Amino acid sequence: MEFTISDRMSKMKGSAIREIFKVAGDPSYISLAGGNPAPELFPNKELAEIANNLLTENPVLSLQYGVTEGYVPLKEKIKEMLIEKENISFDGNDIMITSGGQQGIELITKALVNEGDTVIVEEPSFIGATNAFRSYNAKLVGVPVEKDGISPEALEKVIAENENIKILYVIPTFQNPSGETMSLEKRKAVLEIARKNNILVIEDNPYGELTFDGNKMPTIKSMDTGLNVAYSGSFSKVIAPGLRVGYIVAPTELIAKIAVGKQISDVHTSILPQLMVYEFLTKYNLDDYIKENRKLYAHRCSVMIEAMKEHFPKQVTYTEPKGGLFIWCDMHGDYDTKEVAKECMKEKVVFVPGSTFMVDMEAKCSAFRLNFSTMTDERIKEGIKILGNVLKKIMGE
Amino acid sequence: MEFTISDRMSKMKGSAIREIFKVAGDPSYISLAGGNPAPELFPNKELAEIANNLLTENPVLSLQYGVTEGYVPLKEKIKEMLIEKENISFDGNDIMITSGGQQGIELITKALVNEGDTVIVEEPSFIGATNAFRSYNAKLVGVPVEKDGISPEALEKVIAENENIKILYVIPTFQNPSGETMSLEKRKAVLEIARKNNILVIEDNPYGELTFDGNKMPTIKSMDTGLNVAYSGSFSKVIAPGLRVGYIVAPTELIAKIAVGKQISDVHTSILPQLMVYEFLTKYNLDDYIKENRKLYAHRCSVMIEAMKEHFPKQVTYTEPKGGLFIWCDMHGDYDTKEVAKECMKEKVVFVPGSTFMVDMEAKCSAFRLNFSTMTDERIKEGIKILGNVLKKIMGE
Repeated sequence: MEFTISDRMSKMKGSAIREIFKVAGDPSYISLAGGNPAPELFPNKELAEIANNLLTENPVLSLQYGVTEGYVPLKEKIKEMLIEKENISFDGNDIMITSGGQQGIELITKALVNEGDTVIVEEPSFIGATNAFRSYNAKLVGVPVEKDGISPEALEKVIAENENIKILYVIPTFQNPSGETMSLEKRKAVLEIARKNNILVIEDNPYGELTFDGNKMPTIKSMDTGLNVAYSGSFSKVIAPGLRVGYIVAPTELIAKIAVGKQISDVHTSILPQLMVYEFLTKYNLDDYIKENRKLYAHRCSVMIEAMKEHFPKQVTYTEPKGGLFIWCDMHGDYDTKEVAKECMKEKVVFVPGSTFMVDMEAKCSAFRLNFSTMTDERIKEGIKILGNVLKKIMGE
Repeated sequence: MEFTISDRMSKMKGSAIREIFKVAGDPSYISLAGGNPAPELFPNKELAEIANNLLTENPVLSLQYGVTEGYVPLKEKIKEMLIEKENISFDGNDIMITSGGQQGIELITKALVNEGDTVIVEEPSFIGATNAFRSYNAKLVGVPVEKDGISPEALEKVIAENENIKILYVIPTFQNPSGETMSLEKRKAVLEIARKNNILVIEDNPYGELTFDGNKMPTIKSMDTGLNVAYSGSFSKVIAPGLRVGYIVAPTELIAKIAVGKQISDVHTSILPQLMVYEFLTKYNLDDYIKENRKLYAHRCSVMIEAMKEHFPKQVTYTEPKGGLFIWCDMHGDYDTKEVAKECMKEKVVFVPGSTFMVDMEAKCSAFRLNFSTMTDERIKEGIKILGNVLKKIMGE
């Protein structure tokens, strides 16, 4: 049979960096490529006991079909947390459990974006989100990420130049891939611009809790009095990603619509992982685990930065994030980091070239992303040394 | 903020029978409405031990990000089962794990159907699938289900009358909602027609194992030498639905495309449930559990049929399925079973009106679906008696 792929999906292809991720799990490689949390921090013993108890004592609840919108006590628990910790209001907003943070973004796009409509993204931005927008044939437009987030002026210019803008997608805190955090001032300005122009802001916040110094910026959602923001959260980075339990908080009307989409997509998120997260949040103090995460990532980030200072050519600049999982580096000039990645792969070090995160993924890009969350100190140092030497060779230093 | 919903989703609404499903979980109601498997058959003790062992002994595998296409040993295990039990060939075909059978259908639609393209469905058909097609703005066309499946002549007529036909969606075995099974002859004819017209057949087979007498019809996929069939399977009805573990077998090229879609949708199916299914299939004999399912459902179906013989008005006809979970009843004449359902709900008995399963969901429909899998003998008898009395009152007998 000859397949004709739909217009929306015909341009979508498997990740260009598939080869990188193929070897990223191979322990003979030093992987600075993924976005995986440190597995040694998974609370697996607690979860083993929880799963065992659930399946033994609550078999029907744990194994029968569940409600599309999610397990009600889990929704209530997350609401409580968001009200208390993030100052998010549920007046006019509702919450839905999603199969990871990714699913909420896909469902909102399906619900709001007609083919050809515009979606504005930070540039660089998270490929999972940009690909979700591409998969509905959205026109992607980027606004450059600066040290303190996208510039409100640049955003207004892009809005003036484009039509049918439906979504502005941002990761304001410890952005993927740049590691940058949007300032409070810019958060306010961005929200106000979105409100004026009737554009939905998707605020993706998977890394917000991973602040190295404990300081937290108010979320855009906490300032959203006009119901203009959909807030995406996840337990992937603070409990475990394999569970695929995330959530979306959005205006009630939008949640109702995307719940219809979820019903068609996977009926509901696997119920046992939902119950496990609920029990974990109820029986244990998540903040204690988060603290361990912060400590480990802050340490690994500083190890990486130190090694970069020692081994990177002077021309290469890099961000010094205050949280999250990523450092963004730039060789500047006429370099193609896809080629650099290929060279490095020969030396058994992998990372992600910057073009992956760009609106135009085909254009040459001199930047790249490093991840510091999963490797030991020794592996980080060794990897950065090897990468540094490749960079020096290419840059002629 | 004012939301403008996308064209594809603007017509989609929450199920018209939402009120029914709301009370279906209330134990004071007799529910003949759902499609849930019998929870007393869930192998929860086995799964509790498996989950506990996995999380204790294999924490990283159980909790870290997994591969989009699914846990490789699980894919291999299912392949083995399909080759051995269903005579399905993997020459030119590949397999992907999905978050329940539903997800495969949604992803194929996204990959193949442009807005306005035609999808042919059996009529009546499964609402999860018809809504997935609707959600991409497909033009739905129905072919009536007869006692031995859809008529090849009617199918050819529909094909001649429509353009851009991308998918033919069928549930050939113990169809939902009709309970009917397509004959071998019709299976061959339908496949040949699809092949000639370059239409992908989605063969949805969630109930195939639930045969009361142990007899099994060859799947359409087993005859698919031209790579024209995507075969959707699920562990929802033979292990547990809450796990949300299904799979799709399709031509390699199509699997590659829908894997891109899955990456964007939920990254991968929750890994612990995948591992649990794999361990269960490896450590236990699934067929032993399936036998228990068959016995219980055969019994409950016969209890329901006996009660219907006693209590239903003579004019009401019904199918007598040889497997699956459903009986399809027809009052014939100018009746609206939505109204009947409302009357019955007052008497604390719920079922699903037939319009739910039709291409035109707004049209009056004299048929309805009954489910026999979850209620005890006594509740089934009581429910059918009450329903019989309501039918008699309405039909003036």
